[in-house]
Amino acid sequence: MKIDTMESLFLHELSDLYNAEKQITKALPKMVDAATSPDLKAAFEEHLEVTREQFERLEQIFENLEEKVSTRKCKAMEGILKEASDLLSEDVDPAVLDAALIGAAQKVEHYEIAGYGTARAYARLLGNEEAARLLEQTLEEEGDADKKLTALAESHLNLKAAQASGD
Amino acid sequence: MKIDTMESLFLHELSDLYNAEKQITKALPKMVDAATSPDLKAAFEEHLEVTREQFERLEQIFENLEEKVSTRKCKAMEGILKEASDLLSEDVDPAVLDAALIGAAQKVEHYEIAGYGTARAYARLLGNEEAARLLEQTLEEEGDADKKLTALAESHLNLKAAQASGD
Repeated sequence: MKIDTMESLFLHELSDLYNAEKQITKALPKMVDAATSPDLKAAFEEHLEVTREQFERLEQIFENLEEKVSTRKCKAMEGILKEASDLLSEDVDPAVLDAALIGAAQKVEHYEIAGYGTARAYARLLGNEEAARLLEQTLEEEGDADKKLTALAESHLNLKAAQASGD
Repeated sequence: MKIDTMESLFLHELSDLYNAEKQITKALPKMVDAATSPDLKAAFEEHLEVTREQFERLEQIFENLEEKVSTRKCKAMEGILKEASDLLSEDVDPAVLDAALIGAAQKVEHYEIAGYGTARAYARLLGNEEAARLLEQTLEEEGDADKKLTALAESHLNLKAAQASGD
C-alpha cells in the first residue's frame, strides 16, 4: 500500500488496529481459561465484550470513510500475543501465573493505547471529528482496562504470588 | 526457564526488557536517519542516549541480584520494530513519514511503559526497593519520551503532513 497522504496513513493505522483487535479476540478466551483468580477471569471476560464494541467502532469509521474494511497483519500484536502464549506453555506455577498474565495483558493494552492515540491524532488532524470521537471512546476503555489490571496486580494477586514464593 | 516464584517471574521480565532495549538500540539509528524533521531526529538521538543508561540500570539490577545478565528474545519488540521497518521500506511519502515514525516510536515507548511498570510492581512486591527505584527512573524517562512525541505530533509535524495532503 502506498502511503502518500495523511488519509492513507490513517487507513493504514485503522487496518493495523482492526487486525490487532481480531488477534486479541482469539487470544482472550485462552487467557480467561488460564487465569486462576475469578476477578482476573472476569476482567478478561469483560474486556472480550468491550473488544467486540471496539471492532464495530472501527467498522463504522471505515463505513463513514466509504472505504472497505481492510486488514493487514499486525506483526506487533502477533509478537505481544506470542509472548503471552509462550508464558502459558512454559512451566509457570499457578501461583505466579495470574501475575504473569496481568503483565502480558497490560502489554496488549499499551499497544492499543499507543495505536488508538495515534489514530485519534490523525483523525483530528484530518478534521474527522466523528472518527476522533469513536476512537476516543475506545481509548478511554483501554485506559480503564489498564488501570483495572494495575489495581488487580497491586491487590491480592501479586500478594498471593509472593506468599507462594515464601516471602 | 521454569517460572515458579515471583523472583523467577521478575528475572523473566528483566531479561525481556534487556533484550527489548538491545533491539531498540539497533533500530533507533535507522529512525534518526529516516526522520526528516530536525526536532524529531533530535528526539530519537536523545532517546538513544537515554536507552544506554537504561541498559546500565538493568545490568545493575542483575548484579545486585547476583544473577548473570540474561537475555531472551523479546518477540513483542521484534514485531513492533518489524512494523516500523516495514514502514521505512514501504512507499511512504516524506511528508507523512515523520508522522508515521512518531506513531511507531510511541508503540515502542508504550511497550516499555507496560514492561517497566510490570517489573517495578514485581520489585516492590519482592521488597527490592533499590530495583524498584531504578525501574521507576526508567519508567519516568519513557513517560517523558512518550509525552514529547505526542507534543511533536500535535505541533508542526502533523500539520506539515496535512498540508502536504492538500487539506
